Amino acid sequence: MAKQDRAIRTRQSILEAAAVVFDERGYDAATITEILARAEVTKGALYFHFASKEELALAVIDAQMMTDMPAAEPGRASKMQELVDMGMIFAHRLLVDPLLRGSVRLTLEHGSTNLNRSGPFHGWTELHTRVLAEGKERGEVLPHVVPADTAELIVGAYAGINTMSQAINNRADLERRATILYEHVMPSVAVPSVLARLDMAPGRGARALAEAERQRLRAAEAEAALEAAPAGVG
Amino acid sequence: MAKQDRAIRTRQSILEAAAVVFDERGYDAATITEILARAEVTKGALYFHFASKEELALAVIDAQMMTDMPAAEPGRASKMQELVDMGMIFAHRLLVDPLLRGSVRLTLEHGSTNLNRSGPFHGWTELHTRVLAEGKERGEVLPHVVPADTAELIVGAYAGINTMSQAINNRADLERRATILYEHVMPSVAVPSVLARLDMAPGRGARALAEAERQRLRAAEAEAALEAAPAGVG
Repeated sequence: MAKQDRAIRTRQSILEAAAVVFDERGYDAATITEILARAEVTKGALYFHFASKEELALAVIDAQMMTDMPAAEPGRASKMQELVDMGMIFAHRLLVDPLLRGSVRLTLEHGSTNLNRSGPFHGWTELHTRVLAEGKERGEVLPHVVPADTAELIVGAYAGINTMSQAINNRADLERRATILYEHVMPSVAVPSVLARLDMAPGRGARALAEAERQRLRAAEAEAALEAAPAGVG
Repeated sequence: MAKQDRAIRTRQSILEAAAVVFDERGYDAATITEILARAEVTKGALYFHFASKEELALAVIDAQMMTDMPAAEPGRASKMQELVDMGMIFAHRLLVDPLLRGSVRLTLEHGSTNLNRSGPFHGWTELHTRVLAEGKERGEVLPHVVPADTAELIVGAYAGINTMSQAINNRADLERRATILYEHVMPSVAVPSVLARLDMAPGRGARALAEAERQRLRAAEAEAALEAAPAGVG
């Protein structure tokens, strides 16, 4: 393994360990000692990558926006399906990805220090605004919709059903709650013909990821075939 | 002032002081010492009313549901207006009531301890479910609406726009965000004739409270007139 690869992996281990500790304890109660123990790295290695607990927390928060989202999946029925998929995939990932869970906890609670946790709110809002504006250009969106307002509403409401689901049953029903959110909001956003074909049902996150994976495989096979062909012919 | 009144006032002072400290510091970082200093009561007085920081926090959380909500205001146009008013009045009160702010912060963040903060979620959900069910009986609600699902969605979404508004601009725009929430959700809930007459605009919270106050005064005057009349005649 090259030196740079190793550094990237160490950084990732620290980030994931920190996310788990932040998720369990919250920002205030989390300690560098506990993060070190979980990451199984030296203090020197940690401080090489992150100067402070705050810097570590900000990196965990940022990781939320870096998740590999199959946003431009060409097979998607509509921009509005892309909008719904952002939330449905997020709900699915939150159950399986500790890094995302740590990031979400830091974002949703302000703690006693002034950790700037507005980043993901702005990031997700921008992403939603863009998809809504593109949907509007394509005629998928009702004329009275203001993309930035609807974007902020969906992002804020989503954060809330997440908090509520976490408070009530440790997120066991988050997907169902996300479905109910979209069922209530999308009729005020999408034109009827697009609305009728939206998949907003629980399990959509896993289905969208599987579909993206199939497309990636098909694309890779097509590329391999293309590369193999001249050799076979020539 | 009677002994009992004094005890009630002392309890209320402690509760309000605790709410301010919880709102500023969060549950984990808040200390009894700081609450005592702010409430200007003795340690003995505090522990007479609340056995621990946890008990104090639970009482602050509970206070959220005790706010004097003009729910049964007879002049209201519809049950759906009552539904919207719960959120619009809450947004208005949150800006002026420190006890409510402390309660909300404790409810929305779970801290490092296992403080049970699901109470207000359940309480508000029950209240919303009841109003939606009553609205359904009166024909104000679309046939496909499941009151409990819609209730949970509104309560959860509201919590989220609250968190987001707090993270981004210290709740300066909460009323506007609440308006946008209802504008998106109510078309999926209320029948068109009821929807068309809903007041969901910013400022509705203050207007609803003023209207309730006027009705209280009219009722008090009517009662006073009724009491005065027999004396004048006889």
